[in-house]
Amino acid sequence: MENTYGCSSKTTKDVSLQEIRDRLAEFAEVRGWVQYHSPRNLLLALVGEVGELSEIFQWKGEVARGLPNWSSDDKEHLEEELSDVLLYLVQLADICGLDLGQAALTKIVKNAKKYPVMNQ
Amino acid sequence: MENTYGCSSKTTKDVSLQEIRDRLAEFAEVRGWVQYHSPRNLLLALVGEVGELSEIFQWKGEVARGLPNWSSDDKEHLEEELSDVLLYLVQLADICGLDLGQAALTKIVKNAKKYPVMNQ
Amino acid sequence: MENTYGCSSKTTKDVSLQEIRDRLAEFAEVRGWVQYHSPRNLLLALVGEVGELSEIFQWKGEVARGLPNWSSDDKEHLEEELSDVLLYLVQLADICGLDLGQAALTKIVKNAKKYPVMNQ
Amino acid sequence: MENTYGCSSKTTKDVSLQEIRDRLAEFAEVRGWVQYHSPRNLLLALVGEVGELSEIFQWKGEVARGLPNWSSDDKEHLEEELSDVLLYLVQLADICGLDLGQAALTKIVKNAKKYPVMNQ
Repeated sequence: MENTYGCSSKTTKDVSLQEIRDRLAEFAEVRGWVQYHSPRNLLLALVGEVGELSEIFQWKGEVARGLPNWSSDDKEHLEEELSDVLLYLVQLADICGLDLGQAALTKIVKNAKKYPVMNQ
Repeated sequence: MENTYGCSSKTTKDVSLQEIRDRLAEFAEVRGWVQYHSPRNLLLALVGEVGELSEIFQWKGEVARGLPNWSSDDKEHLEEELSDVLLYLVQLADICGLDLGQAALTKIVKNAKKYPVMNQ
Repeated sequence: MENTYGCSSKTTKDVSLQEIRDRLAEFAEVRGWVQYHSPRNLLLALVGEVGELSEIFQWKGEVARGLPNWSSDDKEHLEEELSDVLLYLVQLADICGLDLGQAALTKIVKNAKKYPVMNQ
Repeated sequence: MENTYGCSSKTTKDVSLQEIRDRLAEFAEVRGWVQYHSPRNLLLALVGEVGELSEIFQWKGEVARGLPNWSSDDKEHLEEELSDVLLYLVQLADICGLDLGQAALTKIVKNAKKYPVMNQ
């Protein structure tokens, strides 16, 4: 299967934000970590992960789509850092009592109105 | 419905990362924006949105779970900034040819092994 | 005058970190803002400014040294965002009771030991 | 000596931004690192360091001014991360051909006009 950018993308399972949220909530619950999950703690943890994500790209100059020259180890490392950002983002939304998936769809609709498609 | 943290969470629809990815890919496609979506451009746009997310929390001191004293306008603003971070994260993963949802589940499993649950 | 990278740099005055710190401390004092300057508030404000700095570069692809094709307005905007990051960084160090200038020199010495110069 | 916040601050030397800039420029020059110092590379390195700075604060909840309960090791770690952010910021400004110290003073003056002092 090809995605929009022409990169091969092996999407084998359709993972929902709610599934990730539920797994993370249980993960924190059984480890007694919920006490540390205040909004600003999670936000700073998110910023920390964005830093680690940036470090992957920092000395590379421009990077081509699909990461053609990256080793599988480097791609796996990138997948982990992208995931870490997502995991804290989902937890931050959850602890704030907000529905991230619904909010994202709403934002896409809002963006579509803000930037109408020309010449269609 | 209550989430793990005891915050009310009106999850009415189970939104998948693949659905968000598909919508964003089409969004960029029909607007001719794909040309701007290099990995590092999207990464810096993500950092910009994390900055806007942080600005919401910057002068507030500690923030309580569920945002009990926030106005609905402030909550909506937060939902938008959380969404903006997610939308760029999904696009960054997509342009790199990576499956963010699958990567997130894999990372949760890896974390579970790294931090085993005690006394069960 | 030329800097190391061959960019013209009109350094007319040698500004010290202590001078910036003193000015910012007085600035906050006379406005009654000291009460808002907790370490994590200042840190999140710093992250917000790093976001604004990133937004300047986000859709530009690679940017050449010395910013040869930038308008003076764009350069001024960049100067402001770089400054905003610095101002919060100086205030964060100050409120933590740390001497940023001395720490920076110490870090450079430490880096020099960590990365010795080869073939000299 | 006491700073504005009442924290003890042992400022023994007045370090200038130009001195830091010169040292860093020489540091990169003798190591052959100038080739890696493009604006966006340095910006992403800065974001990486902001992430490491945030990690120090991420699980701490609110932190008191002057860091009264921090060990000297923790304070030294914080000094190093604050410094790393500063070092990349100085290099980013330098490679863009901008005078960070002068820009900072200009920004303080601009902020003073934007936020006039009341009741004086």
